[in-house]
Amino acid sequence: MATCGLIEYENAGPEVRAVYDDIMATRKTDWINNFWKALAHDITTLRRTWESVKQIMAPGALDPLTKEMIYLAVSATNQCAYCIASHTAGARKAGMTDAMLAELMAVTGMANETNRLASGYQVEIDERFKT
Amino acid sequence: MATCGLIEYENAGPEVRAVYDDIMATRKTDWINNFWKALAHDITTLRRTWESVKQIMAPGALDPLTKEMIYLAVSATNQCAYCIASHTAGARKAGMTDAMLAELMAVTGMANETNRLASGYQVEIDERFKT
Amino acid sequence: MATCGLIEYENAGPEVRAVYDDIMATRKTDWINNFWKALAHDITTLRRTWESVKQIMAPGALDPLTKEMIYLAVSATNQCAYCIASHTAGARKAGMTDAMLAELMAVTGMANETNRLASGYQVEIDERFKT
Amino acid sequence: MATCGLIEYENAGPEVRAVYDDIMATRKTDWINNFWKALAHDITTLRRTWESVKQIMAPGALDPLTKEMIYLAVSATNQCAYCIASHTAGARKAGMTDAMLAELMAVTGMANETNRLASGYQVEIDERFKT
Amino acid sequence: MATCGLIEYENAGPEVRAVYDDIMATRKTDWINNFWKALAHDITTLRRTWESVKQIMAPGALDPLTKEMIYLAVSATNQCAYCIASHTAGARKAGMTDAMLAELMAVTGMANETNRLASGYQVEIDERFKT
Amino acid sequence: MATCGLIEYENAGPEVRAVYDDIMATRKTDWINNFWKALAHDITTLRRTWESVKQIMAPGALDPLTKEMIYLAVSATNQCAYCIASHTAGARKAGMTDAMLAELMAVTGMANETNRLASGYQVEIDERFKT
Repeated sequence: MATCGLIEYENAGPEVRAVYDDIMATRKTDWINNFWKALAHDITTLRRTWESVKQIMAPGALDPLTKEMIYLAVSATNQCAYCIASHTAGARKAGMTDAMLAELMAVTGMANETNRLASGYQVEIDERFKT
Repeated sequence: MATCGLIEYENAGPEVRAVYDDIMATRKTDWINNFWKALAHDITTLRRTWESVKQIMAPGALDPLTKEMIYLAVSATNQCAYCIASHTAGARKAGMTDAMLAELMAVTGMANETNRLASGYQVEIDERFKT
Repeated sequence: MATCGLIEYENAGPEVRAVYDDIMATRKTDWINNFWKALAHDITTLRRTWESVKQIMAPGALDPLTKEMIYLAVSATNQCAYCIASHTAGARKAGMTDAMLAELMAVTGMANETNRLASGYQVEIDERFKT
Repeated sequence: MATCGLIEYENAGPEVRAVYDDIMATRKTDWINNFWKALAHDITTLRRTWESVKQIMAPGALDPLTKEMIYLAVSATNQCAYCIASHTAGARKAGMTDAMLAELMAVTGMANETNRLASGYQVEIDERFKT
Repeated sequence: MATCGLIEYENAGPEVRAVYDDIMATRKTDWINNFWKALAHDITTLRRTWESVKQIMAPGALDPLTKEMIYLAVSATNQCAYCIASHTAGARKAGMTDAMLAELMAVTGMANETNRLASGYQVEIDERFKT
Repeated sequence: MATCGLIEYENAGPEVRAVYDDIMATRKTDWINNFWKALAHDITTLRRTWESVKQIMAPGALDPLTKEMIYLAVSATNQCAYCIASHTAGARKAGMTDAMLAELMAVTGMANETNRLASGYQVEIDERFKT
């Protein structure tokens, strides 16, 4: 029940189709997930968001699997159900095993815990960390 | 200005010293950062937190650098200044270059953006992601 | 499945009905949404919350549409599904067009991204911003 | 460096002074902390916020110490440095010992961890919890 | 639709069963909720998380009801639907009445509000709170 | 103490200078704030972030002042000290009065409160909001 509805490929205009085509070509897949269909009512946001994601998630100093796992860790921290579902799928496609998922979740959970211990106890930053 | 103050090694009792010694041996370092000194007033939490962190951050299906970077991504998402400082240092010690940091931050920022686009537009989870 | 159930108008006592009546009169509507029905088990919270919302959302230095959009931006940031749904409806009733919604979401997403870049990179506040 | 500055008692008008007087009388103290002085530029928000806090924090089904500890748990979760400082002081004044603080922080940290494990693993709510 | 599925008691190996047995014995109940079944694919995380929760939630300087309510306040703040459901049930089992729930939610809501007023207005921490 | 330091105009290469020049021209100002100087070590992120911000914050269906206020509401919700400082300045430059700021903060605070009441009480979304 996306706010403005979902725009399917067959109902999309040429500008939206061009983005959809690039998503499918880049990701080597034959379908478009709902996130993009929900953004497609606003071609400016659709195009900018896709171009940004495409640039950021490309292989670089970090490999695509590491990037997908970081995306999933952030999404779990923010409790975004949609993004957890989509990036769990994305990370698996990029090679994440069950053992890697388990460690990713363990680190994510622990970081959320110690973040609160550090601020809850008002711990000041060590001088050594400032340089 | 940690809530209960910081317990230095020379003022610590044998139980706290045992944890401090294990932290320094495990991390191959000769100092203890403030986080642990602030927890040391409560030996139960100090010991449980360290044992958990030690277990979780050990090499496994994911390498220590990847784990440190995930920790940093979560800490940046939660805006925990202490943890951002300490895990930036930790990730660098584990081998994170400036180029890797830049990509880590880019992914973290983008994930925080699309998390809100997905929920803000009330996007429903694709059936394909549910299986 | 609200924790304490929903109190419908016909089952409500006079104190709750008085709040419901004021909500409908103020909002020029003939129904009460679930949020208020879920709070109605606690007349103190129901009354205080409604009086606060009524005062805060009234036209003032900011118009009601701007206020509804700010409410929606916060709700999307917090990923509160109920509030996203109810304040999307509220903002539309107040005059939000699809184009305005698209820009609202774009700003909300971007702010969530740059919030993490600023804290993730440990950027210090400029002196000029402090005065 | 509060955005609009801090309004001291001696510079406050009669409406602000009336709120300040009630805060000091209710809390049995002789000073006003910065939070209220920063709100005082907007008498409407100052008065509404104080009246709400006064009502909510009064003894009821929960005692004031429990309420202060819940306030602190939420503030640590949100990483609000000001509120952590002020409600640590408030909880201590209400009787929180170091041992209670330690357990409060342990619960807060753990809840933040398992919140992410539950959503990160996409755990569905048990039927038994829905009734 | 937990990511790795749910492991039922009858399908669990001896290590997982040992944890399940301890959960049921400690909590004086005859069933295991989905959270643990979802973690059971990773015996390390299952065991560590349970041992931590068991230690933290045991009676100490704070009673179990207070601890469950703090857990619920954090879960509501983080908007974790699963944890809100499970810890509402847990707190009720520990003795939380509707009146206590109402006050717990009122404090949680108010803390979330004033957290943002304090940081939004850039209120500096009072010197008195620093010592 | 930005993680990678701040790149001043006089030390910047031509690509970074081009972005700085465009920021100053677009914003009709003669200085660059620290956020951009901290990003400048990564020309890709600097350029993409600026191009996105420039596009999103331009006048459109919403005016620049409304956009700056939404940015500030999100930043206060996320407790990002840097962004609160910079967007308070940005909103004021765009015309935000003290009275508008006060109402903006009141709405932001209230939204954060009711977000938690809605999820804490497990309120289901009204059918009317789904269409």
